[in-house]
Amino acid sequence: MMNITEISGGITSPLGFKAAGVHCGLRKNRSRLDLAMIYSDVRCSAAGVFTTNKVFAAPVGVDKKQLEDGYAQAIVINSGNANTCNSDGYEKAYMTVSKAAEVFGISEGDVLVSSTGVIGVPLPIKPILDGIPMLKSKLGTDEQSGENAAVAIMTTDTKKKEIAVKYEHAGHEIKLGGICKGSGMIQPHMATMLAYVTTDAAISPELLKKALKKCADSTFNMVSVDGDMSTNDTLIAMASGLSGTAEIDEEGEAYDEFVEALHYICLYLAKSIAADGEGATKLIECKVKGAKSEEDAKILAKSVIKSPLVKCMIFGSDANWGRVLCALGYAGPDIDTEHISCVFRSSAGEIEVCRNGMDCGFNEDEAKKILTRNYITIECSVGDGIGEATAWGCDLSYEYVRINGDYRS
Amino acid sequence: MMNITEISGGITSPLGFKAAGVHCGLRKNRSRLDLAMIYSDVRCSAAGVFTTNKVFAAPVGVDKKQLEDGYAQAIVINSGNANTCNSDGYEKAYMTVSKAAEVFGISEGDVLVSSTGVIGVPLPIKPILDGIPMLKSKLGTDEQSGENAAVAIMTTDTKKKEIAVKYEHAGHEIKLGGICKGSGMIQPHMATMLAYVTTDAAISPELLKKALKKCADSTFNMVSVDGDMSTNDTLIAMASGLSGTAEIDEEGEAYDEFVEALHYICLYLAKSIAADGEGATKLIECKVKGAKSEEDAKILAKSVIKSPLVKCMIFGSDANWGRVLCALGYAGPDIDTEHISCVFRSSAGEIEVCRNGMDCGFNEDEAKKILTRNYITIECSVGDGIGEATAWGCDLSYEYVRINGDYRS
Repeated sequence: MMNITEISGGITSPLGFKAAGVHCGLRKNRSRLDLAMIYSDVRCSAAGVFTTNKVFAAPVGVDKKQLEDGYAQAIVINSGNANTCNSDGYEKAYMTVSKAAEVFGISEGDVLVSSTGVIGVPLPIKPILDGIPMLKSKLGTDEQSGENAAVAIMTTDTKKKEIAVKYEHAGHEIKLGGICKGSGMIQPHMATMLAYVTTDAAISPELLKKALKKCADSTFNMVSVDGDMSTNDTLIAMASGLSGTAEIDEEGEAYDEFVEALHYICLYLAKSIAADGEGATKLIECKVKGAKSEEDAKILAKSVIKSPLVKCMIFGSDANWGRVLCALGYAGPDIDTEHISCVFRSSAGEIEVCRNGMDCGFNEDEAKKILTRNYITIECSVGDGIGEATAWGCDLSYEYVRINGDYRS
Repeated sequence: MMNITEISGGITSPLGFKAAGVHCGLRKNRSRLDLAMIYSDVRCSAAGVFTTNKVFAAPVGVDKKQLEDGYAQAIVINSGNANTCNSDGYEKAYMTVSKAAEVFGISEGDVLVSSTGVIGVPLPIKPILDGIPMLKSKLGTDEQSGENAAVAIMTTDTKKKEIAVKYEHAGHEIKLGGICKGSGMIQPHMATMLAYVTTDAAISPELLKKALKKCADSTFNMVSVDGDMSTNDTLIAMASGLSGTAEIDEEGEAYDEFVEALHYICLYLAKSIAADGEGATKLIECKVKGAKSEEDAKILAKSVIKSPLVKCMIFGSDANWGRVLCALGYAGPDIDTEHISCVFRSSAGEIEVCRNGMDCGFNEDEAKKILTRNYITIECSVGDGIGEATAWGCDLSYEYVRINGDYRS
């Protein structure tokens, strides 16, 4: 077993990375940061995973193009406006790219951009162009600078989301850091609204892309807050290579270790998004086992955590397990309905509520006690197949409705 | 154009049908009806469309079997318990069938049963068996008797749902009546929790089944309240043939007219379900045109009315049209994103909010005024294809969360 240790900090923890967050004026509230930058001293191997929504933001289109060569050095991210469904969206995204390249003296091909916020409102470009020199003056390798970037990309998030880890390889320490934002419009492919991972590992662009895709599939793509898939979803990883280790350019032990650490970062960030779902009071984890394949297990687990009736049931701490079976039943994959079992688990204990597809006479008070905690696991066995998967979501509360009934004002 | 006229009444309006609703004791509240019956003086052509959920209720399994021969004469329906996920579910459903056959002196093969309510709790059978003679004593052809049945099948519904229509064919009057219940766990395939249509048209079982399936596809299956598909969804039609017209045993004018009237009934009932969605304050209708096929248009329209963000936006009367485009974009079918247009319409007027995939500078106050009404149409043009479809849903309110956070208590 490889030893992954969480360390303090975030995206500035790996060697070579600086970050900043400033208020450039996209938001009216002057105390709210709205422009972030992630910058590497050296050109990085870089890879991205993006929304599959057919309506996608201009910056998503720009980043896909920019990442075709597998390299990047800086990312400029604004909150407050999604730069989606605007006639001048690409023009403004490229103006941001040009400005950053000029201010930092790097190649235009190495600048990425992201936007998050309201759709269909033209992006005010002046605050961003004026903000880029401000970002340069604020860039730092310290933890606070990384945290400022994490805060500047938030929209309806109630908490900043960041993490850093380290592990050893061939006598060298390799670090990875990550930040993300997202709480509404969260749905598999991609679950994140915006997520960024930095690392000082040395890895080829091809393998970084492969590792990122693999990790996204079992983490960000297994999270759903409300079933809506954003037009802006973006996950980008940058590897500076400054840890001093040899470049990972083929699969093997070094690659596997890196994937394990990258998975750790992605899982933490994905769960943070689910736990901070708009209006969420509880994190819901659904583990499915015994499905015919891993793919089936994924579909089943997601169906449970996406069911509004299951989400309301967890909000109300009501052990109405029939809703879990119902969500498994309409998901699509074949299941052995006469042998489904279902267990609810939390820090207060665990209780089997259903066995062989039927009520197993559990104690309602005990179930209630378990469901009142804020991290609930629903474990379902749906047959004797080898397929297993886990998905994460959150409960559905009054607050979700309040936030989304009046988002723009 | 054929002339379909709405008339007063419901399932007892067509010739030959009687109905009743009684309190048998499944519900604690003695003033609440919980057992209903629909009875025909003669054996009827009968057809059903049922949930496709792999976890389905015992009565659904029984009815599928009973309808294999295409005939039925009576339906017994209870609310308060779904008779799903119980080890003795089939046994109790067949006990109900036997008792009704005995009490009414009809064939066991002609009795159907339905249940709605909580899943996984054994069905108390004594109240039902005792209730069947009570139903017999209450059966009537009057409107009140039909209404009692409509009320007895309600769960979280706030309104009873019934309708009757007539049309003329070859000098004879043909009548159709319908009742349904459903407000939570409503989702295409099947949208209804429970719906029943009676008619005195004479039609062969094969064509009745074909007509029912066709109508369900463009009505009940285009309604979604919360994306959850029930384990009990049932739509049954019974045709007594007592109108005096010749039996419809092949496609042609008489069949087409019947389908048109049946569609009218189904559409009314399906829209009633959407409008009475749990906690709903508004009915949302989404019309999609210009899709590559009707199938694509259906998927796109459903994606819009199912989006929690669109539902919250309508609840809040906020013209955040980017959410509509977002839901079209992740639905799956190919759309011409650069030529999408979107119009909001209600009894207060109509307003174009998006043209060519972009904001068209609409007046926000005017849009707000339109969206504050309780029947909102969202019309989207997604290209120049021939595919058109309409779907119905409802907004997402605080009340939905309250109802479903604490359903069982």
